[in-house]
Formats: sequence, structure tokens, C-alpha cells
Amino acid sequence: MPNICSVKDLKKVAIVGVGLLGGSIGLALPAVAIGCSRVGIGRRRSSLRRALQFDAIDYGTLSYARGLAGAQLVIVASPLRHFERIFAAMAPHLPAGCVVTDVGSTKVEPARLAQELLPSHVTFIGSHPMAGSEKTGVEFSRADLFSGAPCVVTPTTSTDRHTLQLVITFWETLGCTVVRLSPKQHDEVVARVSHVTHLAASCLFLAAAGSGRLELGGPGLMDTTRIASGDPAMWLDIMHMNRGPLLSAIKELTTLLGQARTALRAGDDEGLLALLTDAKQRRDKWIAQKLAGKEV
Amino acid sequence: MPNICSVKDLKKVAIVGVGLLGGSIGLALPAVAIGCSRVGIGRRRSSLRRALQFDAIDYGTLSYARGLAGAQLVIVASPLRHFERIFAAMAPHLPAGCVVTDVGSTKVEPARLAQELLPSHVTFIGSHPMAGSEKTGVEFSRADLFSGAPCVVTPTTSTDRHTLQLVITFWETLGCTVVRLSPKQHDEVVARVSHVTHLAASCLFLAAAGSGRLELGGPGLMDTTRIASGDPAMWLDIMHMNRGPLLSAIKELTTLLGQARTALRAGDDEGLLALLTDAKQRRDKWIAQKLAGKEV
Repeated sequence: MPNICSVKDLKKVAIVGVGLLGGSIGLALPAVAIGCSRVGIGRRRSSLRRALQFDAIDYGTLSYARGLAGAQLVIVASPLRHFERIFAAMAPHLPAGCVVTDVGSTKVEPARLAQELLPSHVTFIGSHPMAGSEKTGVEFSRADLFSGAPCVVTPTTSTDRHTLQLVITFWETLGCTVVRLSPKQHDEVVARVSHVTHLAASCLFLAAAGSGRLELGGPGLMDTTRIASGDPAMWLDIMHMNRGPLLSAIKELTTLLGQARTALRAGDDEGLLALLTDAKQRRDKWIAQKLAGKEV
Repeated sequence: MPNICSVKDLKKVAIVGVGLLGGSIGLALPAVAIGCSRVGIGRRRSSLRRALQFDAIDYGTLSYARGLAGAQLVIVASPLRHFERIFAAMAPHLPAGCVVTDVGSTKVEPARLAQELLPSHVTFIGSHPMAGSEKTGVEFSRADLFSGAPCVVTPTTSTDRHTLQLVITFWETLGCTVVRLSPKQHDEVVARVSHVTHLAASCLFLAAAGSGRLELGGPGLMDTTRIASGDPAMWLDIMHMNRGPLLSAIKELTTLLGQARTALRAGDDEGLLALLTDAKQRRDKWIAQKLAGKEV
């Protein structure tokens, strides 16, 4: 059981890593939990100072002992590669009944680390608010970053329903539409709707660059490869941590490309048209649903 | 030798197929060739009537004999699949010394058809103005559609330099940056910077849709697959007509994806990071050059 029941009763929230996502949570908190104290925990004084300047936190500290004392909710918003170190450093200082979540782009690995490293008197539920951009840093934070964004919350068999409800309500209060999936389901889905897309965008740009005539690339190439300009180190982390599902997704994409190639080579116009039409119809329907969702 | 020397001296231009591109040429013409008569040739009275309503042409006709009489420049702006029929229908009515060009997305096939079907008293040079959008129809035409867009002009060994200069100047006057390539070079480049991108976007969306959780797709998926919402019939044409180079480009993309997959499976973080970094750096440089070009 968590030691608080509702988001508006939060008295102290600790944000570990105050970048774009952590900072946006900090900016959004005062409106949903009046009087709640927001502490930022980081590795560099300069980052914490910047977070203070942007009013994303009330105070910052390099010390887990100080930062976590009395915290009811802890949100880990650092790059995935730091999770193991952070979970180990947090463990001795987490108050009993405290709820821990994160905003990482994969969910199996954080759940495994929590199971291994966090004390049994706290509850961990992984979250993945699907907001952000290729920009990073607290200076791009916005209180409304999460408004309308999906957020996957990933309970496990050991999750109690009170804590689950608290975490779900937390993200809903910030404007997210919450989807519940197991960590494994989450990782399989994001490999297909996001991670493989990033890898393909990188490969597509390299293929285009290989033509030696990039001046002929237009808006289509620009949009299709936009995400390839994201931070390579961050994406390496994500891909590394979601290796199995990503390998399956690459295989699936390669199979689809192979089908198109076979149809093209055989002069099977019907087969190729069916593939192009299927993709267009599904995408148009998806876009229409997105737009309808925004109007509600 | 063409029977005119400069774009501003054009007295009659025929546009075959007055859709988005043909219509935009029509809208741009009065400012660059004052008093030039713009005739639209089409298969449906309703399309020509719409082109007249949008002031993209001065008059429209279903008759090649009437439309082509006295024309100094003929621009074929119909879908590629109609080129063979159109070239054959135009042939008996093209005035001597007339210059013929087109705006098709592939260039080997139009050059072949011109060689086979057009009379020797006219000169054909294929063009590919790389403007447009996933929208089609004269109602989306704009006089400035070509402003800043690259346009590939594809002379062959039999092209005389006067005609080449006329066609180059024509596109430059409309605001394009002209690039000269052979038809074969053109088709190889666009397979890599455009056609394979379209096919990959379609396959990526199908892979994402296969997750059954499209509600978790975000702005990244939206941008990466935008062009998959383009007209399947038009894209089938393009892919069909550019089969060889497109097959090579698909193979290249598959090889790059295979490299990424091998690196990922082997835990070769350095290799994967190198690929992601290379793509990001090349793309960032390309974007910077695009932006710099726009400021000139």
C-alpha cells in the first residue's frame, strides 16, 4: 500500500534527472498537487541550477539521502543507461511506502532492475509517457508536454491495485491517456511503432546519401527521416535495452520489404498495389482517429 | 533547333493534363511570358472546366490537333501510365521545331517513348520538377509551387544545346534550381532519395499496424510514414516504371538494416552507434545546407 491515496495530496515528489521529461513533470505538478514540494536529484550542479532557473523544481540536490527523505513519489527521468546505477544509489534511501516510477522508453529492463535492486517496502510501476521530441534538456520543458499523449503504465503480477491507481491517476492528471500493458507487451509494441521506425529512418537516410545527390531529396525524405536526427546515444540505449523485440520488428520490416521486392521483380502490379493501398488505408484511418480523439 | 529562343517570347504553350503540376505551371506562366496563350489538353471536359475556373489555362480542348497547332512548348503533366497513349496521340499534330518536355517522376521511360513515338522534327527533353505533395488536383495548384524546388533536366546525346538551354531557362524562370543528369542517372538517384522511401514508409506502417496498438504511435510514426498516405495508383506507376533502380535501392536498404540487425544481435554497440551517428551527422548537414540555400 502506498502511503498516500491521491495525487492532490502529494507533499513531496522527487524527480531523478531533470531534463525535457523530468522538467515538464516538474512544471506541471504545482497545478495538480498544490503545495507539493518538487525536489530534483542530479549528478551535476549546473543541470540542477538550470532546472531551478526554469522553475521546474523547488530545490535540487546531488544527495539521494537528502532528496529522497520523505518523498512519496519518485520519478526516474534519466537516460536508460543510468538506471542500474540510479536504482542502486536510491535503494538505501527510499522511504517505506514510497511509490517509484520511471519514464524510460523500454519497460522490461527497468522492471527487472527494480525487482533486483529496490527494497521490498517500496512499489515500482514502470511508466512510459509517449511525449517528447528530438530536442533534449530542461530548457524545452513545457507544463503541457503530456497533454493528449498516450502513457503506458506497466503493472506486474505483484503490483497492488492502490499503487496502480495512483500512478494511473498521476499521468491522467498530467493530461495523458493511460494504456495498461505488461512490460513485455509494451516493449514488443514500441519496437514496432517506434524503435524500428528510428532504425529504418537512419538506414533510409544513409541509402539516400549514398546517391551522392542529396540536393534532390525533398520534403518526403525530410519527414521520413526526421527522427534520424535524434540523439544517437539515447537511441543506442533504447535499442540495446529492447534488443529482442527490436530484432523481431526488423525481421518483420525486412519481410515486408522482401514481399514488395518480389512483387516488383515479378511484375505483380496487383500485389504491390495491394500493399500500398493497405498501408494508405490503415494510415488514413489512424490519422482520422487521432484527429477525432483530439476533438473530444 | 527550337523555333523560339527565349522563354519570354513564348506565344503558345500546351499543357497536357492540368492537375497539381500542370495547373501550377499554367498559373506561373503569365508572369514569365507575357501574352503567352496557355492551352490545356485533357480527356475530360470537367477537368478542363475546373482548370479554367482556377485560371490555370486560357482555354481547354479534348483535341490534340487543335491544342497543339502553333504550340512552341508542350508539357506533358499527366500520370506516367498515360504517357504511351499521349505521346502516340500527340505525334501527328506536333508542329516542327516544337519542344516537348514532361514532369514525370521517372525519366528513362519517357525518353524511350519519345524516341520511339515522337517525330524527328521536334525535340524532347525530360524534366522532373521535384515539387508537389500528397495532394492532387488543379485546386491545389499554386503559381509559386516550383519556387526553390530542384528540377532535374535530362538531356541525351542527341539533345541540341539551344533546346537544352530553353528548357533549363524555363524551369529557372519558374523558380527551380536546375540539375542536369542523364535519364538513367536521374532514375537511380530518385530510387534512393524518394521511391524506396515511399515503399519503406508503407512497410513501416504495416509493421506498426501489426502491433495492434496503433494508439501508441506518436509524432515519429506520423512523420516517418506521411508519404505512405500518397496515391497508391500513382506510386505503383512510378515504382513499375523505375523497377530496376528501385530493386537496387531496396536491396541497399535491406543490407543496411541487416548490418544494424547483426550489430544489435552481436551486442556490437560501437557498430550500431556508428551507424546512428553517421546518419544523424549526414542528415544534420543536409538540413543545414537546405536552410542556407533558402536564405540566399
